[in-house]
Amino acid sequence: MNILHDDRLDGELPRIDKAAVLAELQRAVPDLTLLHREEDLRPFECDGLSAYRVLPMLVALPETLEQVATLLKRCRALGVPVVTRGAGTGLSGGALPLEQGVLLVMSRFDRILDIDPDARTARLQPGVRNLAISEAAAPYGLYYAPDPSSQIACSIGGNVAENAGGVHCLKYGLTVHNVIKVEVLTIEGERMTLGSEALDAPGFDLLALFTGSEGMLGVVTEITVKLLPKPETAKVLMASFDDVEKAGRAVGDIIAAGIIPGGLEMMDNLAIRAAEDFIRAGYPVEAEAILLCELDGVEADVDDDCETVRRVLEAAGATGIQQARDEAERAKFWAGRKNAFPAVGRMSPDYYCMDGTIPRRELPRVLKGIADLSEAYGLRVANVFHAGDGNMHPLILFDANREGELEQAEALGGKILELCVEVGGSITGEHGVGREKINQMCAQFSPDEITTFHAVKAAFDPERLLNPGKNIPTLARCAEFGAMHVHANQLPHPDLPRF
Amino acid sequence: MNILHDDRLDGELPRIDKAAVLAELQRAVPDLTLLHREEDLRPFECDGLSAYRVLPMLVALPETLEQVATLLKRCRALGVPVVTRGAGTGLSGGALPLEQGVLLVMSRFDRILDIDPDARTARLQPGVRNLAISEAAAPYGLYYAPDPSSQIACSIGGNVAENAGGVHCLKYGLTVHNVIKVEVLTIEGERMTLGSEALDAPGFDLLALFTGSEGMLGVVTEITVKLLPKPETAKVLMASFDDVEKAGRAVGDIIAAGIIPGGLEMMDNLAIRAAEDFIRAGYPVEAEAILLCELDGVEADVDDDCETVRRVLEAAGATGIQQARDEAERAKFWAGRKNAFPAVGRMSPDYYCMDGTIPRRELPRVLKGIADLSEAYGLRVANVFHAGDGNMHPLILFDANREGELEQAEALGGKILELCVEVGGSITGEHGVGREKINQMCAQFSPDEITTFHAVKAAFDPERLLNPGKNIPTLARCAEFGAMHVHANQLPHPDLPRF
Repeated sequence: MNILHDDRLDGELPRIDKAAVLAELQRAVPDLTLLHREEDLRPFECDGLSAYRVLPMLVALPETLEQVATLLKRCRALGVPVVTRGAGTGLSGGALPLEQGVLLVMSRFDRILDIDPDARTARLQPGVRNLAISEAAAPYGLYYAPDPSSQIACSIGGNVAENAGGVHCLKYGLTVHNVIKVEVLTIEGERMTLGSEALDAPGFDLLALFTGSEGMLGVVTEITVKLLPKPETAKVLMASFDDVEKAGRAVGDIIAAGIIPGGLEMMDNLAIRAAEDFIRAGYPVEAEAILLCELDGVEADVDDDCETVRRVLEAAGATGIQQARDEAERAKFWAGRKNAFPAVGRMSPDYYCMDGTIPRRELPRVLKGIADLSEAYGLRVANVFHAGDGNMHPLILFDANREGELEQAEALGGKILELCVEVGGSITGEHGVGREKINQMCAQFSPDEITTFHAVKAAFDPERLLNPGKNIPTLARCAEFGAMHVHANQLPHPDLPRF
Repeated sequence: MNILHDDRLDGELPRIDKAAVLAELQRAVPDLTLLHREEDLRPFECDGLSAYRVLPMLVALPETLEQVATLLKRCRALGVPVVTRGAGTGLSGGALPLEQGVLLVMSRFDRILDIDPDARTARLQPGVRNLAISEAAAPYGLYYAPDPSSQIACSIGGNVAENAGGVHCLKYGLTVHNVIKVEVLTIEGERMTLGSEALDAPGFDLLALFTGSEGMLGVVTEITVKLLPKPETAKVLMASFDDVEKAGRAVGDIIAAGIIPGGLEMMDNLAIRAAEDFIRAGYPVEAEAILLCELDGVEADVDDDCETVRRVLEAAGATGIQQARDEAERAKFWAGRKNAFPAVGRMSPDYYCMDGTIPRRELPRVLKGIADLSEAYGLRVANVFHAGDGNMHPLILFDANREGELEQAEALGGKILELCVEVGGSITGEHGVGREKINQMCAQFSPDEITTFHAVKAAFDPERLLNPGKNIPTLARCAEFGAMHVHANQLPHPDLPRF
């Protein structure tokens, strides 16, 4: 895959003189590590969405906030765009560099500044790895809940930028629900504190606004997160179904029974076979779908909930239900799920991972719709996803070396996302928009809504120097892309004004 | 109390010709109920902060969204400010009218549009009363968690505008954590959808930005909230202490023990006596402080948690612990707390209610600080508050008819809020800034932060016509007020740039 068909920026940026910028930044921030030779820049040409590659003009690796502040001020004065990057594990190209921009890599800010077991908070530099937070909190019986698949590598700063999720979001929320305060630097190099350690902060909720803003509003330099007590126990049930839609309906039934599982994941036959072939997780390869339902909390409750869920699954038509007998089996069940993406990757030269979310009740309908689209486009689609919160991850299998298949895969992906929007969902749940889904934003939002996003962006960064060309499309791009705002099929307002 | 000392608007608005505006609005929206005679306007001259009174120029009582949209468009064209009002129960003067503005009263939008028991959501018009949501959800075993004291009267639209809280916020979050989608009209009369029924919405988190924005960004016309399953049981413990600071420490101990109570409230001796005298709740009138700790969930857990909390309270030095024997006694314990404000009101001609929040660990220190300030200013202060989430409600008792006492009360209140900010807290937890605390915003935020708020405001309402003079002070006001940004006493950054 390449981005030749999509390598233009939204809006025009003046041509930038790399040598002059390098000289000026070296003068202004003499102790800053600045990479500028092609061989040094090469490792930074993409993030986790490796299909998109751009060689950055320069890479900055600051170690102090003063360096970051001065760098931002100078870039602003010079009119040079800045893309901030954490660990580079993002899946939507949010940290894709710019040929004419500086890539600001925050990985050296990797200190855990404080763990407060009484307040149950951790104060962190942005480069701290997600899993390192839970490791540092473990001696106090605490952990950090959001757990993206990349948690061993991804950084908390990137998690804030993308509002990252994970298996446990259904019960414990996304990043935005687990961050209480951030320190940021604006493009003017000014420091702001958003949120507070207290219940609430007055004024507008800029903390939530920053979370998920994909580096377009400022640079996060410190993060305070909530820690949660580790559940006493966790047990997992695996249910098999002979029909994908039945499994989809069972998801809603579990929630309707008053249970909020710690994780509620679904895989279809293609994903089951791929995972089993790769990991030997003990999955039933004949099943059309499985649900993995993890229940966590105090022992007695978890046992009660397991019984309830078992009854619901039986009533929903499960053909088999297996409870992991011990921690080893529980780990194996999850290993299959957590390695499902690479497992599917082994089945096909290329795959394209979508991240649409839908209201839970629409699962059966959308699964059916995806199957129909898969047939119509002649491309296989494996489904493996966070069913409990309606966050789907259809994996479209294709071979980029076969004439036209890439375009077919992209077209099929676009159709799937439009289907998600149609039923009242959205084009991304936890991966962000980045560069990848910028065209689909035109389907998600009306021109008025997109205009408002730009106005909010301008409140922080009027020259649009922070991560331009990501997240929010220009209206010109939407017109060029030919995208139409797709209205969700909500009940019509009886007294809605017709504009 | 009066607002003669504080009745100016921030920024200048041109003089507006009432008769001309009335005529033009009557022409543009002929079927709109528009009040304009003094006797009709009088009932709208204040909200729940009755000390501040301003007669609005006009009051609009629309019944259709088309009327609201047209009204907003016309007001914008005429340069007439608009203050949106829900039920008018707010405690910070957020819906205080403007002499030169239209008061847009949303109370006629009072329909519950949909309850979806499977998705556990309710779709509401903004004028629906808070308690009516739980009443409508009750047949499904569901309820709406945020429960401001005014829940019998306040409306969900006002709750969104003020990000309202309540006794259950500690466990179930503020309004922002319980709203998933809103429909809004901009000052241009354009409709926008913020948030979604799915897990997450891409783009900037404008839903969180709107929640708590006090009517400064747009008019909320429809709200979708989360509903929660009603806990199987709830039990309440009342603990007495011979020392306020000990009670404050016990609050942190309970949370540190891994318990998140459904409610964790504290009252000091003055509040206890007032409530007991008024309600006969069965409170120990000799105690220096009581804690009310409610535990909710499934029966077995709640019993376990009651035992744990009892042990923690004993270790923290409680002089007595009483568990409500039945629902009637539980209701009585809560009735004392819920009526504490009017109870204190009976003890004094006037009282002034603060709403500062602090990190929980600072409770003992801040309680001591309030006692010292109370003595220094010679005014009694009753404390009754949401201790679990550090949301304090000091009630300053005074007599406005005594020369200088109002000013003393206001000065004492300001000092208490500054103390809250100093320890890393904020000037408001759940009441909002409104008109009341606009000067204290200058202590909470730096000039850069306030400038950013204005920039965000301008992204939605460049002419500053929506609720001007509330929530966000001008820098000119801060200079005039002489307020200094108070830095929280956080650990200094080792590598912080010095600007």
